[in-house]
Amino acid sequence: MDDLGERMHRLCRELFPICRSITGNGLRKTLGVLKDNLPELVVHEIPTGEVCFDWTIPREWNIRDAYVMDPDGNKIIDFQNSNLYVVGYSLPVDRTVTLEELQGHLYSLPDQPAAIPYVTSYYEERWGFCISEEQRRHLKSGTYRVYIDSELSNGSLTYGEVILPGRSEKEVFLSTYICHPSLANNELSGPVVTTFVAKWLSGLKDRSYTYRIVFIPEGIGAIAYLSRHLEVMKQRVKAGFNVTCIGDDRSYSYLPSRNGNTLSDQVALHVMKHMHPDYIAYTYLDRGSDERQYCSPGIDLPVSSVMRSKYGEYPEYHTSLDDLHLVTPSGLRGGYDVLLQCIRCIEHNETLKLTVLCEPQLDKRGLYPTLSTKESGRQVREMMNLIAYSDGQHSLLDIADKIGVPMWDLFPIVDRLKTHRLLVPTGEA
Amino acid sequence: MDDLGERMHRLCRELFPICRSITGNGLRKTLGVLKDNLPELVVHEIPTGEVCFDWTIPREWNIRDAYVMDPDGNKIIDFQNSNLYVVGYSLPVDRTVTLEELQGHLYSLPDQPAAIPYVTSYYEERWGFCISEEQRRHLKSGTYRVYIDSELSNGSLTYGEVILPGRSEKEVFLSTYICHPSLANNELSGPVVTTFVAKWLSGLKDRSYTYRIVFIPEGIGAIAYLSRHLEVMKQRVKAGFNVTCIGDDRSYSYLPSRNGNTLSDQVALHVMKHMHPDYIAYTYLDRGSDERQYCSPGIDLPVSSVMRSKYGEYPEYHTSLDDLHLVTPSGLRGGYDVLLQCIRCIEHNETLKLTVLCEPQLDKRGLYPTLSTKESGRQVREMMNLIAYSDGQHSLLDIADKIGVPMWDLFPIVDRLKTHRLLVPTGEA
Amino acid sequence: MDDLGERMHRLCRELFPICRSITGNGLRKTLGVLKDNLPELVVHEIPTGEVCFDWTIPREWNIRDAYVMDPDGNKIIDFQNSNLYVVGYSLPVDRTVTLEELQGHLYSLPDQPAAIPYVTSYYEERWGFCISEEQRRHLKSGTYRVYIDSELSNGSLTYGEVILPGRSEKEVFLSTYICHPSLANNELSGPVVTTFVAKWLSGLKDRSYTYRIVFIPEGIGAIAYLSRHLEVMKQRVKAGFNVTCIGDDRSYSYLPSRNGNTLSDQVALHVMKHMHPDYIAYTYLDRGSDERQYCSPGIDLPVSSVMRSKYGEYPEYHTSLDDLHLVTPSGLRGGYDVLLQCIRCIEHNETLKLTVLCEPQLDKRGLYPTLSTKESGRQVREMMNLIAYSDGQHSLLDIADKIGVPMWDLFPIVDRLKTHRLLVPTGEA
Repeated sequence: MDDLGERMHRLCRELFPICRSITGNGLRKTLGVLKDNLPELVVHEIPTGEVCFDWTIPREWNIRDAYVMDPDGNKIIDFQNSNLYVVGYSLPVDRTVTLEELQGHLYSLPDQPAAIPYVTSYYEERWGFCISEEQRRHLKSGTYRVYIDSELSNGSLTYGEVILPGRSEKEVFLSTYICHPSLANNELSGPVVTTFVAKWLSGLKDRSYTYRIVFIPEGIGAIAYLSRHLEVMKQRVKAGFNVTCIGDDRSYSYLPSRNGNTLSDQVALHVMKHMHPDYIAYTYLDRGSDERQYCSPGIDLPVSSVMRSKYGEYPEYHTSLDDLHLVTPSGLRGGYDVLLQCIRCIEHNETLKLTVLCEPQLDKRGLYPTLSTKESGRQVREMMNLIAYSDGQHSLLDIADKIGVPMWDLFPIVDRLKTHRLLVPTGEA
Repeated sequence: MDDLGERMHRLCRELFPICRSITGNGLRKTLGVLKDNLPELVVHEIPTGEVCFDWTIPREWNIRDAYVMDPDGNKIIDFQNSNLYVVGYSLPVDRTVTLEELQGHLYSLPDQPAAIPYVTSYYEERWGFCISEEQRRHLKSGTYRVYIDSELSNGSLTYGEVILPGRSEKEVFLSTYICHPSLANNELSGPVVTTFVAKWLSGLKDRSYTYRIVFIPEGIGAIAYLSRHLEVMKQRVKAGFNVTCIGDDRSYSYLPSRNGNTLSDQVALHVMKHMHPDYIAYTYLDRGSDERQYCSPGIDLPVSSVMRSKYGEYPEYHTSLDDLHLVTPSGLRGGYDVLLQCIRCIEHNETLKLTVLCEPQLDKRGLYPTLSTKESGRQVREMMNLIAYSDGQHSLLDIADKIGVPMWDLFPIVDRLKTHRLLVPTGEA
Repeated sequence: MDDLGERMHRLCRELFPICRSITGNGLRKTLGVLKDNLPELVVHEIPTGEVCFDWTIPREWNIRDAYVMDPDGNKIIDFQNSNLYVVGYSLPVDRTVTLEELQGHLYSLPDQPAAIPYVTSYYEERWGFCISEEQRRHLKSGTYRVYIDSELSNGSLTYGEVILPGRSEKEVFLSTYICHPSLANNELSGPVVTTFVAKWLSGLKDRSYTYRIVFIPEGIGAIAYLSRHLEVMKQRVKAGFNVTCIGDDRSYSYLPSRNGNTLSDQVALHVMKHMHPDYIAYTYLDRGSDERQYCSPGIDLPVSSVMRSKYGEYPEYHTSLDDLHLVTPSGLRGGYDVLLQCIRCIEHNETLKLTVLCEPQLDKRGLYPTLSTKESGRQVREMMNLIAYSDGQHSLLDIADKIGVPMWDLFPIVDRLKTHRLLVPTGEA
């Protein structure tokens, strides 16, 4: 049994029913649950009306209840059963309407008749309900009661932040988003995997880098966070990942930063190539999440994405079918392992220099294995190749790529050669 | 009906009968006809004997009449019927010769028995006639009268030049050659298409660049022109095209500059890829026209060629079969369109910078299409991709290449974003 | 008859019986034979105990006799018949042992039952015999006499060096190794081909470069030589080759320097591509000879290898089957020709500049062939292409690569154009 996968899935289940949006109490409640798991998390509020670059923090939206009652008095749509039923940011309404008028406020998917779609309307005021095409087809004519007990008013945008200091002020940045209601792969997998990675980092005795980890609403949250921290982030962030769609059991995916050649990209490609060589490589033209902000001109942070099935690329995306059957313990665990391996590679990356000229004499230091096996032969070869490229010019990651081995195979060899003072670091890579 | 194609073909027909060479009255007459179409054209003369780099302007050659009369007194070769019959730069002759002696002065093509070849002898003094292999085979023995009323004497080399000033002193350079007698694709298509492109440019209200357009004899003309204008051209010319073989209806072709990576090359490749993806890409080793001079060491102008069927690569090349059946209105129009598109791309190329940090809020500016269609979706995607790369580092052409769309698709989007002050140019690209 | 190949093979035969190791009289005897062929060769000795970077010169090993006598008194193993029978650096022994004890000191190859393996034990003290698996299987039980009359004592490491001065102090470096006993491709082919290349160089009237040629024991010899000459070599060596495995009749092989893009690599690739396009390209990860030292971090000499069948890649490697049937006159000649062509390319490599602007007028200098043939057409094309790239930026080797011809085709053309002062060198390339 994979205990870690189960624990992540349990946290997903706890968070699933909460009605989240880009603002409101659902965000606060979600961050509260995350803080129970990650005490270092600090919650921040940005007031409605604050200007963030080209944007303004919108009014806060909260919803208590909503339903549609059919001509016979049956609640055929009930917010208490699924928060997907209501269009996000719907205005309050309490009226009686004909079926014809109701139809103009219903959203369904003819091609996926069993699915309730996920719809929002942040920037145009309206009200609406989402419904499966199957249910919609059976609506009888007559008079319907539509009721949404929501509120759109001045308040704030809520986000969570964790800073874990390391030996260096240079930072690794993790960003994930918490603005989606009852949707699992996109997006509870991101916050949950990020929380567990943060817990692992928190337990790490000696971090090479400082970690900046944020749980924000997508889009406006990233913009708002950047508008408050851009200068320091541009100075410090060495690598970052947008953590999203990282919990199902199908493919592994990589989406590059705009630059395409940052440390974040190099690490992600290295990890994918060795752990999941059949991963899908997207391009920056396929982007669709917060890398749109983090990599925009003048921001230019080194942020890529490592994912399982990418947003927009799986049939359940943005529907009620993206649920906790789609996201599994093993799916979350696979995503966690990839992200953690990326972080381990960054932590161990450094430029190394051989302290002697020509090949060192390994015999006299007992660095050759005494028993010659296939495995020991491989280790000697990797050690000699590592030595051959430790010229003070190549990072350990460069070397691993050059000699065609997973970087993590080299960690113990580097330790051994450092102990014998044959390799010395010349600086962070 | 393609009126522009027809008008270009009509000009070809007007110019076709004139006997052109690298010097002489044929050149002057040709330039006179072109000037009727393009009043900005200025005619220049360079005197015989002027030293141009390693070369010297040769004596001027003129011819009034020529024929061969057979033993029965029939004019079997008559210059009045085709100027191809006479070897270019033939010395005057008026003699009676045996068939055997005549044979030593005849040029024909055994592999293309119906074609009269195009032959010149600029640098070795001789006289000769070109004839079809078929006709040659039927020559009867006996005594022939050979008559060439030509003259090789001090004079000048004639060329035409058009300068169309633009906002910038930086120049786009177009060069085409007018030294071929009655040959159509190679070479009346070049001068005629260039004339019509120059007319279009002349009518353009607001040119970004200054245009330097020359109509010269190939080889010695390019050398002579360079020897007089090299310094200013090296400072100013940003891109150039050698306009040749641009009037038949078959393939599209591209031949790079020697450098291979100039603006001229980047534009030509972009236009070809999007307009005629099955174009033929030659290398600089396939060169054979005035890029030999424009791209030579120390000259190094950014000159590439966009062509239809390239010189040397079609069976009718340098024979009487390269006529006005081979060159067609639609062939000329296709070539014109490619060259013009190259120029439009250069005119619109600039480095752009987004004026806001993070993605701009397009809603508040009404920049999202109100009606969502497949086409509007494409336009939004192109707009967002354009914005994503407008970082002050990429030219519009770079961006178009990066995001995989024809540059001209972006022109109206750039205009709209400039109007909203979301994009500003940071300089010519 | 290929006289040169025969002469090289004869020298191999003369050297074959000598028992060589990384130190000892076999080295001195071998260098003596080479000096008979190459009087410029100077022999050097480095005393036991001298520290060379991370290493120390080991004690000198000499052996006079060795055998194994079976229970019936037959010498079943006799050093006088083959020096491969004794493990290199075996301690002296003179004992009677049971078959069981003997087995622990025997080395054979179950997969190659007819072959005697080549085994050494430089850094761990032991004694042992090598034997064919076939012979081993027939050993009868009983008592065996084992006898090795060897000596391990203070002395020196011996190597040979030839310096052939050239116009430039810059050097071409050739290194080959002489520490293998009766083995032919790996390694008598290297010393013998190097000797004959050195003889050719010695006879060259006007060398562009100085040649530094060493005959050393592999590994420790390279390290020792570098420890004594590193500073001057780093300043002077422009290109170098490790000469090994260059005498059989099968494949041609190339192994790059660590950098991969040195003059040595560029030349080797050019020569292989044109002379033996089906050559095998190895990577630096396949290394296994003295490039391990020459290309190590901080040494970084531009040393690649051009070989026939590479060490470790042919079945006879490091066994008694690597003999003078495997190495042939034609095999040696093929290797010699490749190495010599590399050297000729380096000797002729220079950066050239056209002295005129635009194409030169070749007629007036008589540089066009008077008779037009297919061959003359090719020569004119190569001449024009050479001129087109003689811009003072490209070396002749760059140009040959760009225009797709063997560099040696251009040598006579360069000479002709230099004679006419159309090309001038702008410096060594």
